[in-house]
Amino acid sequence: MAAAAPPPAPTPAATALPDPTPIGYPLFTRIRLATASDVPHIHKLIHQLANFKHLANHCSATEASLSSTLFTSPPFQSFTVFILELSHTPFPPQLHTQYSLFSPITQTITLDLPIDDPEAETFKSNDKDCGFDVVVGGFVLFFPNYSTFLGKPGFYVEDMFVRECYRRKGFGKMLLSAVAAQAVKMGYGRVEWAVLDWNVNAIKFYEDMGAKVLQEWRICRLTDEALQAYANPAI
Amino acid sequence: MAAAAPPPAPTPAATALPDPTPIGYPLFTRIRLATASDVPHIHKLIHQLANFKHLANHCSATEASLSSTLFTSPPFQSFTVFILELSHTPFPPQLHTQYSLFSPITQTITLDLPIDDPEAETFKSNDKDCGFDVVVGGFVLFFPNYSTFLGKPGFYVEDMFVRECYRRKGFGKMLLSAVAAQAVKMGYGRVEWAVLDWNVNAIKFYEDMGAKVLQEWRICRLTDEALQAYANPAI
Repeated sequence: MAAAAPPPAPTPAATALPDPTPIGYPLFTRIRLATASDVPHIHKLIHQLANFKHLANHCSATEASLSSTLFTSPPFQSFTVFILELSHTPFPPQLHTQYSLFSPITQTITLDLPIDDPEAETFKSNDKDCGFDVVVGGFVLFFPNYSTFLGKPGFYVEDMFVRECYRRKGFGKMLLSAVAAQAVKMGYGRVEWAVLDWNVNAIKFYEDMGAKVLQEWRICRLTDEALQAYANPAI
Repeated sequence: MAAAAPPPAPTPAATALPDPTPIGYPLFTRIRLATASDVPHIHKLIHQLANFKHLANHCSATEASLSSTLFTSPPFQSFTVFILELSHTPFPPQLHTQYSLFSPITQTITLDLPIDDPEAETFKSNDKDCGFDVVVGGFVLFFPNYSTFLGKPGFYVEDMFVRECYRRKGFGKMLLSAVAAQAVKMGYGRVEWAVLDWNVNAIKFYEDMGAKVLQEWRICRLTDEALQAYANPAI
């Protein structure tokens, strides 16, 4: 019978060397209410969204048209925009909330690799209270809708967009969750939005989060000459 | 060859009898902005609409929930209701408009037969300036929506309803046209609403009026427990 084998030599990992430094790159995120000073960024994001959908020729929004139609009433009462900001350094604590109804939402995520943002300069945030590396990464535009059957309001999300280099990190979910949280806070009954029926990945994402896709309903749209004509009917 | 036939004897219609009295019953109509005092009628109309759609068990609107959520901001800025009123006598001239943005729309139609309204007492209008035979016949509820691509608002029609005895007279078209006219007046870009895909009569009616049915889009809805859960996400 052979003698008991000697204990195996310790592998390098089992030596007294210190644990490897945790791998990761922190990215600080903030969702805040947009204001009129964000219109230039929102305008660029809308046009990137139109390009992404291959609908650039249908996009006639200008900084002037956005400025004259957004931010004309208090947030949540009408058209409301949340801005997603990203920074490599922590956001300063909020000394005051912008509005009593909403405090900016900050969150820190850890990335495996740093993100190279080729448009960092273009999308540098205009919030003067923040560091110089804060960039705008996306937005969501929503407004109150109403359910006659529930007898109460909800929110309708018209558009949501995250810039290309920041996708697949959960930021879309963060923006949509911020809208959902605000709806719950205000006692609203629903959050709704529209999706293209062939966008199966998006539909799966929405269904996984608990949303129902209303298969039987179709949106009707009256616009341009037909709208003008219908505004002056003969019974 | 036979002699020329004598001229035919005059028929009774060709005699000197006077023309028959024009047949018809005038019905005077008015579309006006609803106010908080219309909530009891709106509440009953919403429940009739729910019954009509066989969705009564999904209808939880109460007078209290409607009162606390409607008419809390000026018309057209948020949820807005037009009321359709009907009368056998002309409406008095408008001494003043309710709001500078909207003057009630009056129109007279001629019916072949008078309408028997079995609910006339229940739906008697509460407008003190009108005669005693004015009844509420229907409503439309709408609110501003927003197109990021156009960079301007539109109107979304959430629900429209005409009581059974007044259907097929063009009142639905009158209500929808009033919304379209207001959209044009305010420089808005679109009027939108939803229709069930199996409601082929409604779809034909909408397409005949020039509306497009967006076949590829589906509405997503987050509500109840799923909304609550999504409001507190972990990225």
